[in-house]
Amino acid sequence: MTLPVAVDAMGGDRAPAEIVTGARLAAAELQRPVVLVGRPEAIDAVDGGTGGLEVIAATEVIAMDEDPGQGVRRKKDSSLVRAAEAVRDGRAAAMVSAGNTGATMASALLRMGRLPGVARPAIATPIPVPGSTPTVLLDAGANAECAPAWLLQFAQMGSVFARERFGIAEPRVGLLSIGEEPTKGTPLVREAHELLAGASGMRFIGNVEGRVILSDTVDVVVTDGFTGNVALKTMEGTLRFLVGAILESFSASEEAKAAAEVLLPALSPLADELDPDSTGGAMLLGVDGVCIISHGSSSARAIVNAVRVAHEMVERSLVDALRDAVGRSPAERSRLRSG
Amino acid sequence: MTLPVAVDAMGGDRAPAEIVTGARLAAAELQRPVVLVGRPEAIDAVDGGTGGLEVIAATEVIAMDEDPGQGVRRKKDSSLVRAAEAVRDGRAAAMVSAGNTGATMASALLRMGRLPGVARPAIATPIPVPGSTPTVLLDAGANAECAPAWLLQFAQMGSVFARERFGIAEPRVGLLSIGEEPTKGTPLVREAHELLAGASGMRFIGNVEGRVILSDTVDVVVTDGFTGNVALKTMEGTLRFLVGAILESFSASEEAKAAAEVLLPALSPLADELDPDSTGGAMLLGVDGVCIISHGSSSARAIVNAVRVAHEMVERSLVDALRDAVGRSPAERSRLRSG
Repeated sequence: MTLPVAVDAMGGDRAPAEIVTGARLAAAELQRPVVLVGRPEAIDAVDGGTGGLEVIAATEVIAMDEDPGQGVRRKKDSSLVRAAEAVRDGRAAAMVSAGNTGATMASALLRMGRLPGVARPAIATPIPVPGSTPTVLLDAGANAECAPAWLLQFAQMGSVFARERFGIAEPRVGLLSIGEEPTKGTPLVREAHELLAGASGMRFIGNVEGRVILSDTVDVVVTDGFTGNVALKTMEGTLRFLVGAILESFSASEEAKAAAEVLLPALSPLADELDPDSTGGAMLLGVDGVCIISHGSSSARAIVNAVRVAHEMVERSLVDALRDAVGRSPAERSRLRSG
Repeated sequence: MTLPVAVDAMGGDRAPAEIVTGARLAAAELQRPVVLVGRPEAIDAVDGGTGGLEVIAATEVIAMDEDPGQGVRRKKDSSLVRAAEAVRDGRAAAMVSAGNTGATMASALLRMGRLPGVARPAIATPIPVPGSTPTVLLDAGANAECAPAWLLQFAQMGSVFARERFGIAEPRVGLLSIGEEPTKGTPLVREAHELLAGASGMRFIGNVEGRVILSDTVDVVVTDGFTGNVALKTMEGTLRFLVGAILESFSASEEAKAAAEVLLPALSPLADELDPDSTGGAMLLGVDGVCIISHGSSSARAIVNAVRVAHEMVERSLVDALRDAVGRSPAERSRLRSG
């Protein structure tokens, strides 16, 4: 029997309406089970209702701007905490939330627990690269400060994720820095470079600059959560700004407007590929379960994609692959083999 | 008598041809003196020659990929070192180079010296924001690791630069972080936030995210040189990628090609504004002289703009304004006043 994906019905700027609608669409389109987690009365009030989906009742909601640690500690009956518990208790195969990112991480970490040997879970965000497979950026914000050894684990986990999620046989892993030379950057980067260069079972291509994230030269970009989050948001801001400026210049004259109408069909595949709703969300790697973090403004379509990816990752046993890649040190592995 | 701007004729991917041509154009267009620094025979060999510009002979060249520290120490007769000496010795008012960035910084720092009280010079890069004044990002790469007090000085210097360079009376200063809350980010960011919040003579608007760099919500974005360089290059890569993808979709069909031709005039002001050649280059703030760092691929047009900005900054006494803003602590200032 296929376990359902638990969707946090209360999380996100457009919750519960878009989330519940997305969950319903996902179940219908994917022919895979979905369970909603949240306030039954709020879920029922959504246009179209649950559409027959099961609901795990949770009376509390952790707000988008609430302190994550406090929220999770105090609101034990919140939709986020209950969704993570459903995965822990084997009632759900995975969780999806477009809610408070910090609280999603904290719920998953506290309820599902860390994979053995994982120092810190990381947020892996797929950056869509039109015409190519996405680039996986991690850590995209879970850990503002990192130790070199954590970056090695991020690289191992990111590599497994890029393989299972995008079918890249040997993902090229780059370490984000301010020049390709191993001597450049911060002490963190220099030490992580040494660890990555000495690591086996991974295709480390060296240090990379921010300009290659959106290109087909690297598959996994490893960095600390501060730099990763700044890079991600800088990229989002740049895309949004440029698209806005282009659209504005398209309406500069009647002639331009008419020409723009001809061009829109040519531009729409590009816009679709860059649309964050189509990536299926970011994933928290290193916890003992599949946890998808959708962006706060997720539409119903974003939830459908997140549920699809969640089911895929469960079917491909992503968590087992991560456990194998990181959880055991070489010494432990050889002990296990000989024992 | 107006002192000339010293242009490093040997620095840049397109040196010496584009650089010498740019220097010649600058002198003619701006009606301001320019002196070329480099190998006389290489300069003379450029199509069009010096056009009568004075040349300061320098027999050596620090290559683009050469170690900056070693280059500056060993090549005492390099064009970069000689250009910085010309400013120090009062033979030139400012220096401009599109060469090795690290070596440009080292030459300026070693030959011109630091302004009194400045802990570390920083690279201030204007990010063009079409439809608005540019955002000044600093440090864009001079100091991979920073102390909180340095970030306060970067804010003070960036503020003065935004005022003198772009005429912004009270520049809005933001501290780059991964959320607007003062509690978010690294210890560096949290400590710098406290210093900035307590500083007078500056309009600190709090922590800002990467998405606002390319917008009209902030004038000066302060960060360490690692994060700043990653943000800058991520932005460059995103712009380049998106522009490439758009141009590609414009040639998807004959119809699209025809429509694109109609739109190009509407798009070209945007492209011009985003063109790094039109910004006049980055500036090294905190050394005792005007030093402009142009990007490596600078065209003749980029050099014209850099020379124009260099003369403007000299005329506006930027260095004196920086000295006043940073060089003296409040205690020293009050001592000077009462003394």
